[in-house]
Amino acid sequence: MYAITIPEPGGPEALVWDEVPDPVPAEGEVLVEVVASAVNRADLLQRQGLYNPPSGASPYPGLECSGRVAAVGPGVVGWSVGDEVCALLSGGGYAQKVAVPTGQLLPVPAGLDLRSAAALPEVTCTVWSNVFMVAHLRPGETLLVHGGSSGIGTMAIQLAKAVGAKVAVTAGTGEKLDFCAELGADILINYREQDFVEEIEKATGGAGADVILDNMGAKYLDRNVRALAVNGRLAIIGMQGGIKAELNIAALLNKRAAVSATSLRARPLGEKAAIVAAVREHVWPLIESGHVRPVVDRELPMSDAAGAHRVLEESSHIGKVLLVAP
Amino acid sequence: MYAITIPEPGGPEALVWDEVPDPVPAEGEVLVEVVASAVNRADLLQRQGLYNPPSGASPYPGLECSGRVAAVGPGVVGWSVGDEVCALLSGGGYAQKVAVPTGQLLPVPAGLDLRSAAALPEVTCTVWSNVFMVAHLRPGETLLVHGGSSGIGTMAIQLAKAVGAKVAVTAGTGEKLDFCAELGADILINYREQDFVEEIEKATGGAGADVILDNMGAKYLDRNVRALAVNGRLAIIGMQGGIKAELNIAALLNKRAAVSATSLRARPLGEKAAIVAAVREHVWPLIESGHVRPVVDRELPMSDAAGAHRVLEESSHIGKVLLVAP
Repeated sequence: MYAITIPEPGGPEALVWDEVPDPVPAEGEVLVEVVASAVNRADLLQRQGLYNPPSGASPYPGLECSGRVAAVGPGVVGWSVGDEVCALLSGGGYAQKVAVPTGQLLPVPAGLDLRSAAALPEVTCTVWSNVFMVAHLRPGETLLVHGGSSGIGTMAIQLAKAVGAKVAVTAGTGEKLDFCAELGADILINYREQDFVEEIEKATGGAGADVILDNMGAKYLDRNVRALAVNGRLAIIGMQGGIKAELNIAALLNKRAAVSATSLRARPLGEKAAIVAAVREHVWPLIESGHVRPVVDRELPMSDAAGAHRVLEESSHIGKVLLVAP
Repeated sequence: MYAITIPEPGGPEALVWDEVPDPVPAEGEVLVEVVASAVNRADLLQRQGLYNPPSGASPYPGLECSGRVAAVGPGVVGWSVGDEVCALLSGGGYAQKVAVPTGQLLPVPAGLDLRSAAALPEVTCTVWSNVFMVAHLRPGETLLVHGGSSGIGTMAIQLAKAVGAKVAVTAGTGEKLDFCAELGADILINYREQDFVEEIEKATGGAGADVILDNMGAKYLDRNVRALAVNGRLAIIGMQGGIKAELNIAALLNKRAAVSATSLRARPLGEKAAIVAAVREHVWPLIESGHVRPVVDRELPMSDAAGAHRVLEESSHIGKVLLVAP
């Protein structure tokens, strides 16, 4: 098969479409013939040599895909050759084939085309596990989503609205904020022109955000704590703004608040399977009923993964960038 | 009645036993004739003018007491004059009488003397709400308790052992560590001579502590994050080591860990009542069956609150210091 390889870490040009051996499904795995994959920020770090795949993972980038089951490994029950699926991966999505533990497989939601399903696994699992399983967002509470127009952001807005929460977003352009509003966001903050702490305070009558989903890490830590409500929960899922920052423990204590930080990729199989099962139970029905949809910015041929990485680096996209396998 | 007043913030001598008006129980409150109160670190801060009582609270120090119901306010059901109780207070325990919302009352556990019951409310509510309700310590997990010989520490050791957890403690003397061992602590760390991160790592085969109950705040933040296990939860309940420190978000994220910080005093009535109800349900039976007991270092006359504060400032005590009302 062909896959995107990274002979030497570097810029987008480091991504090389090359012929490699087919993966073989191990016990409890299926082989998926990939129809599409999607780009995540972690892929950019992996390309630069800053985020090595966990041990046992495919060396090729790609944390999610959609496709058809092409073969089943030993001990697999409930999945058959020909099934249309999408999958959460620990790597290897930028390829024509990938081996996937069955706990990370999801059926394609009824009514959705197979390619678009590649946009779902990372964002649904990340948002559900952080905003709902860790931070326990409840109806009537306020969620602040940084990067509201990202793949994660567009899913977080929709899921939070679907459960009856109020949603605030930050984004860097009016166009992106308009799109967030179309998805249901109630409070729109242009981080280039406005201070999100002040805006959240104003929009919530001084109460603050009950849950914050943050991809910035260090750069926003202090402001995020200030923007939290009493009993607030800050869920950090990315460190685009650095890895170390001063934490005001007194402010956290006065609010009886909590800071969590997670990633999906390094979790053991059992935890991933539990998240995927929760997503299938809680999120899939919302997609099938039309309340929630994947937001796809554009589709590029998988061999042009470099072009897709450039799109993410420019941050001009809204939603997910897909890579379509030949 | 008489109460300990603080005419001017300052050292222990700032505590003045003086005649003051009796409190009047409001709707949903009872008046408790105090038999004993107990000293908490927050009282020392209040005495120094560093921790003002929340609005509506008694101006006198004292966050817990035991005694007898002397009168019931309007709308009170389930409590009668003469009932022997102990209570979580938002202030006013260093006094002959105190008005208490019924949600913060607990019966004296069967088999326990009324005075010793004054040692229970703060430590049981703090440990249960943080270690169990927030951090969800589970059987088989490892809890690290800083200040294992404090009132909080001695209760945390016993409750964690009672639910089947492994317990590590830090303390500053061999005598204190011996006492922690008698209460059931499995891993003893002298923080003056040993590095708790290394000791926890050794004692858990490199895994780390699943839950840490911390009273130090800033000074221990980085080491606490390093001592956490994957999926670990750091619960901060005090800031004896300062209020601001650098948080290594990458370390937190790699462990999928969380940091929470809480205090009991500022919580609204409903939250306090929920904690008190959980303590009555889960902790009281363990006290009544003899599995868990209050640890009392000494009893002093309430008029000598200054002497009791000096004991806490010297940190030579083990467990709680009680103030007995005349």
